[in-house]
Amino acid sequence: MTRFFGHNYIGGQRSAAGSVRLQSIDASSGERLPHDFYQATEQEVDAAAKAAAQAYPVYRALSAQRRAQFLEAVADELDALGDEFIALVCRETALPAARIQGERGRTSGQMRLFANVLRRGDFYGARIDRALPERQPLPRPDLRQYRIGLGPVAVFGASNFPLAFSTAGGDTAAALAAGCPVVFKAHSGHMATAEQVADAIMRAAEITGMPAGVFNMIFGAGVGEALVKHPAIQAVGFTGSLKGGRALCDMAAARPQPIPVFAEMSSINPVIVLPGALHARAENVARDLTASVVQGCGQFCTNPGLVIGIRSPQFSAFIQQVARLIGDQPAQTMLNAGTLSSYGKGLQRLLAHPGIEHLAGTAQVGNQAQPQLFKADASLLIKGDEVLQEEVFGPTSIFVEVADQAQLGTALNGLHGQLTATIIGEPEDLQQFSELTALLEQKVGRILLNGYPTGVEVCDAMVHGGPYPATSDARGTSVGTLAIDRFLRPLCFQNYPDSLLPDALKNANPLRIQRLVDGQPCRDPL
Amino acid sequence: MTRFFGHNYIGGQRSAAGSVRLQSIDASSGERLPHDFYQATEQEVDAAAKAAAQAYPVYRALSAQRRAQFLEAVADELDALGDEFIALVCRETALPAARIQGERGRTSGQMRLFANVLRRGDFYGARIDRALPERQPLPRPDLRQYRIGLGPVAVFGASNFPLAFSTAGGDTAAALAAGCPVVFKAHSGHMATAEQVADAIMRAAEITGMPAGVFNMIFGAGVGEALVKHPAIQAVGFTGSLKGGRALCDMAAARPQPIPVFAEMSSINPVIVLPGALHARAENVARDLTASVVQGCGQFCTNPGLVIGIRSPQFSAFIQQVARLIGDQPAQTMLNAGTLSSYGKGLQRLLAHPGIEHLAGTAQVGNQAQPQLFKADASLLIKGDEVLQEEVFGPTSIFVEVADQAQLGTALNGLHGQLTATIIGEPEDLQQFSELTALLEQKVGRILLNGYPTGVEVCDAMVHGGPYPATSDARGTSVGTLAIDRFLRPLCFQNYPDSLLPDALKNANPLRIQRLVDGQPCRDPL
Repeated sequence: MTRFFGHNYIGGQRSAAGSVRLQSIDASSGERLPHDFYQATEQEVDAAAKAAAQAYPVYRALSAQRRAQFLEAVADELDALGDEFIALVCRETALPAARIQGERGRTSGQMRLFANVLRRGDFYGARIDRALPERQPLPRPDLRQYRIGLGPVAVFGASNFPLAFSTAGGDTAAALAAGCPVVFKAHSGHMATAEQVADAIMRAAEITGMPAGVFNMIFGAGVGEALVKHPAIQAVGFTGSLKGGRALCDMAAARPQPIPVFAEMSSINPVIVLPGALHARAENVARDLTASVVQGCGQFCTNPGLVIGIRSPQFSAFIQQVARLIGDQPAQTMLNAGTLSSYGKGLQRLLAHPGIEHLAGTAQVGNQAQPQLFKADASLLIKGDEVLQEEVFGPTSIFVEVADQAQLGTALNGLHGQLTATIIGEPEDLQQFSELTALLEQKVGRILLNGYPTGVEVCDAMVHGGPYPATSDARGTSVGTLAIDRFLRPLCFQNYPDSLLPDALKNANPLRIQRLVDGQPCRDPL
Repeated sequence: MTRFFGHNYIGGQRSAAGSVRLQSIDASSGERLPHDFYQATEQEVDAAAKAAAQAYPVYRALSAQRRAQFLEAVADELDALGDEFIALVCRETALPAARIQGERGRTSGQMRLFANVLRRGDFYGARIDRALPERQPLPRPDLRQYRIGLGPVAVFGASNFPLAFSTAGGDTAAALAAGCPVVFKAHSGHMATAEQVADAIMRAAEITGMPAGVFNMIFGAGVGEALVKHPAIQAVGFTGSLKGGRALCDMAAARPQPIPVFAEMSSINPVIVLPGALHARAENVARDLTASVVQGCGQFCTNPGLVIGIRSPQFSAFIQQVARLIGDQPAQTMLNAGTLSSYGKGLQRLLAHPGIEHLAGTAQVGNQAQPQLFKADASLLIKGDEVLQEEVFGPTSIFVEVADQAQLGTALNGLHGQLTATIIGEPEDLQQFSELTALLEQKVGRILLNGYPTGVEVCDAMVHGGPYPATSDARGTSVGTLAIDRFLRPLCFQNYPDSLLPDALKNANPLRIQRLVDGQPCRDPL
């Protein structure tokens, strides 16, 4: 039986200086788990940030190869977490075991993918402009650029992916890959899981000889503010609510030294169902769409919260079809009582709105989430009514019927920024509605055709980001290898001798990476 | 004789709806120039932002090749501005004609360099992960990523580079290259120059068939706030004071939709003079350093405002040498009365500080700036006294003498973020002080060896950026081709047919650009 200490992780040590104790909850039964977690004191938050700051010069000076070995060791340790661990995560989150097993693989896979990025070396962004001593009227000095980690990063994980978006999740992996030590704020929804994962990271850090303080974790409610305001912290990664994310952004912007916050927050992920697709395969679309809405109890950032179609008998029939399917879906246990309560409030907001009609779903009572379907007047979208812009986190979606193609454009223009938009269409639809791509490009981070937004592939080309309020900065992604860019900054050496340059910029190109040399991509030594 | 209208540039039209008129000043004589400029009204600011927003979908949809042609046409128009134009810029800024001629070439060269970037295509950041339909347990869809412009960008130019950091300067060039229309807030220090340059841009836009609203310019004091708060504006570029830049950052962060601000603000650009260099070539260093301090009346963001050395008879002699040289430098006319007044106040702050000694310079009176030299107690740097962290914009510098190598490290650690740091040293110095590179990397955007920070090469490898307060976001540069990255965001297509993909992502690779395909850089068609 694994023993839990509930201590904070600070500079390679365990620390429990505080008197406030927290307990984790069995998500299905509501019972308290038999472990206490010690809320970090102000001094412990300070110590964790300082430990990360102390680790920074050592950690960032390690070769990319060494950092890759660390990430791979974390991956191995995660993979080695056994059935007891899986059962624990399931207990804290009410997510099924198969899903958690899959998510463990995704999380270790993510670590290994960043190890690949470190070895590939494009993250360095190496650029060399050689000296032109004979240039007139002035010679050009030798100039070389590469990228380094920003410094210690504070990471706030999400409840809905207790592994892939949490302690050893994408933000942690990206920051560690970039050479930035991490202070992780453990999510209150899965503190025991967080402890097991933190232990895995600590083992990996020890095996690969990483500096103490490369990874730190603190428990507690309200400790996040002190962390984000700490002068040692240089960037923040966050996944969660719009309210929480925006609060962190505002704090970070108001610091004496403002720092970037990459918050992934709120998205309703519109799905546009076009006439040809309805004609060709309404039944399949209804089934797959319903599955995407209720998958994992709708607890995905990319859950399709809005379905838009053009008024027609076919679209009306399609709505009825989805309504029947949603009505048949069983209730599911949510991640925690807070999530269930938010879901209930979100449904109340929709039920109370005069422009919104309830189409399907058993009344929301009890301790499980009932899938629901609604239909909203198109004017709400066109006028930008906030009720349609706010994500209702859970197994629900809202249909909107627009009058015609022109109104479809107007309605989509009324949307705020989104993580995804999905088009369900046949080739003739895409020809007829050819304006959609350009329009959606301005609204989202990812456009899908004939797929469903749930299921976010971890790869080089993924963008899990998008304009506000989907994220706080559309220039970042929190999934995929480009996520490392958020935590890097460029640095230039002018007239530096080869021996003092970092390996990425030396003449001999010992890392054998591709570099931009005098404006041309090149792997050759100079 | 060129005629001036003083109208705002909005959506390809001239507009002068307001009643507040501004006048430009002859920087040397203080006389008013015989042209009125119409301060933009609230409605005009709104119209300018909306014109940019209207141009955005059209402009960003143009091929990179078309945008490159536009930038090149701007370059040609700038080059064609004749002697009368040069005389006008000199009159408004008191900068010498040779400098303005050089700056014109730099500004047009910058436009042409971004045209190269557009043709090279790496700015797209194209990434393709091909579908893996057979993958277990789940197939991978086809995923393709490229980058698009953020949307309309507000640009605030600097007074000290009336061409290269102003109307058609680096921020404007980077934003236009990225596919972002610009609303430029004309600098009050050179409004007639701004009008001539805006005319050049408008001619280029017309010749190359750009949409109306691709470039807009507004005049006036206080119009910047309305511009930054305008919902159509998606990013801000700024060069100027810490106070002004921070105010814009705070406004942008407090918007309903926060937007990124890239402000280049305050840097004192430390120069570290090491013992071996003093031994080998103190006289040359003294001469070159003095030249860098007074060049262009010290009105450079990279002006060396702090010189640090280790206590020794050689360093004392070196200080005396520089003091003599500074004492011999003539007074110079500054950019405008405001700059001169700020310089005077900055000097007063230094003169009034008990830890700072005045070494050289005639008392600052009259309408020209007197070069000055100071020496500050090392403890001010170590304790982080604000007096040493604030840039005094003008021909002055401060010496700091540290006790030994250890104190040098402590003193440098006390510095805030900087655009540059410079090491003057011989090979044996670099061996003895080998810790300096890693230390300075954490403080600055560019490290120079045996050169002077004034003179910022426009090229791929340049970084004109650095940690706060040098800039508001260390991840950007405002000089060099990487500047385009600030205004781009990634976008992903999932399962999109080839015909609907942008050229950068099509199978055939019609742009012949390098792309990251399944993790490998590749130029081949798929």
